[in-house]
Amino acid sequence: MRPVYLALVHHPVRDRGGAIITTAVTNLDVHDIARSARTYGLAGYYLVTPIEAQRALIERILEHWRHGAGARRVPERTVALALVRIARTLEEVAATVAAETGARPQLFATSARSESSIDVAEARRRMDRAPTILVFGTGHGLAPEVMSAADAVLAPIRPGSDYNHLSVRAAAAITLDRLFGDV
Amino acid sequence: MRPVYLALVHHPVRDRGGAIITTAVTNLDVHDIARSARTYGLAGYYLVTPIEAQRALIERILEHWRHGAGARRVPERTVALALVRIARTLEEVAATVAAETGARPQLFATSARSESSIDVAEARRRMDRAPTILVFGTGHGLAPEVMSAADAVLAPIRPGSDYNHLSVRAAAAITLDRLFGDV
Repeated sequence: MRPVYLALVHHPVRDRGGAIITTAVTNLDVHDIARSARTYGLAGYYLVTPIEAQRALIERILEHWRHGAGARRVPERTVALALVRIARTLEEVAATVAAETGARPQLFATSARSESSIDVAEARRRMDRAPTILVFGTGHGLAPEVMSAADAVLAPIRPGSDYNHLSVRAAAAITLDRLFGDV
Repeated sequence: MRPVYLALVHHPVRDRGGAIITTAVTNLDVHDIARSARTYGLAGYYLVTPIEAQRALIERILEHWRHGAGARRVPERTVALALVRIARTLEEVAATVAAETGARPQLFATSARSESSIDVAEARRRMDRAPTILVFGTGHGLAPEVMSAADAVLAPIRPGSDYNHLSVRAAAAITLDRLFGDV
């Protein structure tokens, strides 16, 4: 399989009313999704935010766990956080992955509400053909412009449920397990 | 299917070296696992800690989201947190579930390292026969006495991985998706 990356987008995403916003970085999003990404063998985990101060915050978190007290106390956390990278935009992520892999990556968007989507089997087939970036939105999900620019949208996790509000940490974990888990 | 509950245990659990400890309650464990439990139709989500001050902390979190400012701002969070209950011990959880369902519940423990375990198909068969409590440990996992007292142990999520350090939030989400998701 070609390399697969995960991108967690803080802008552009939707708020409760559908307005386009920039969310704040959540510490546990960095940790939990890095650990899930490492568990399922991803090639990298990008945190995407246009806000300079937020990127600096992520750098400080990473420094603590990569080289600081955290690295001595919880070494397996260092291993997971080695996957974390920081980018200003999703376009920057795609360009970096293209440079690293030598091929244009395909973007798979995720949504709790998608109507036109691909299932796990189709996603696996496509992941064999090109590097892939799995794109998750914070807030109330990815902006429409991100959804429409994606090469495909993964099927929602729980379309039939009367309650559809998984955390992005849970949604990312479940998505990776569906794509890469050997149940 | 008979009702299924989830219990997140803060004591007795293991630390890095295997010693038995009591962990602190993590705010996002309350939220994330409640949202996952609600998404997959569980009957209740128990936070288990023997420490009075920690149970009071959980009560304050719940109050904010059930009746306070949180309930007005994020009503779907109130729906998920309605599943949350607080208990001193796992035995108290089992007794409460027995009283509620009129049947002795079976306990399924979870572990990243289990050697003698049941797979998803077997777990589903057994869940048809009796109320079930899915038991997750914080820290470095459930104490041996909890593992050996359980009626069964669910198969580890990623036994073949060279990295086996999912967050309990991610592990709970993946476990619920494997047991109840319709992929």
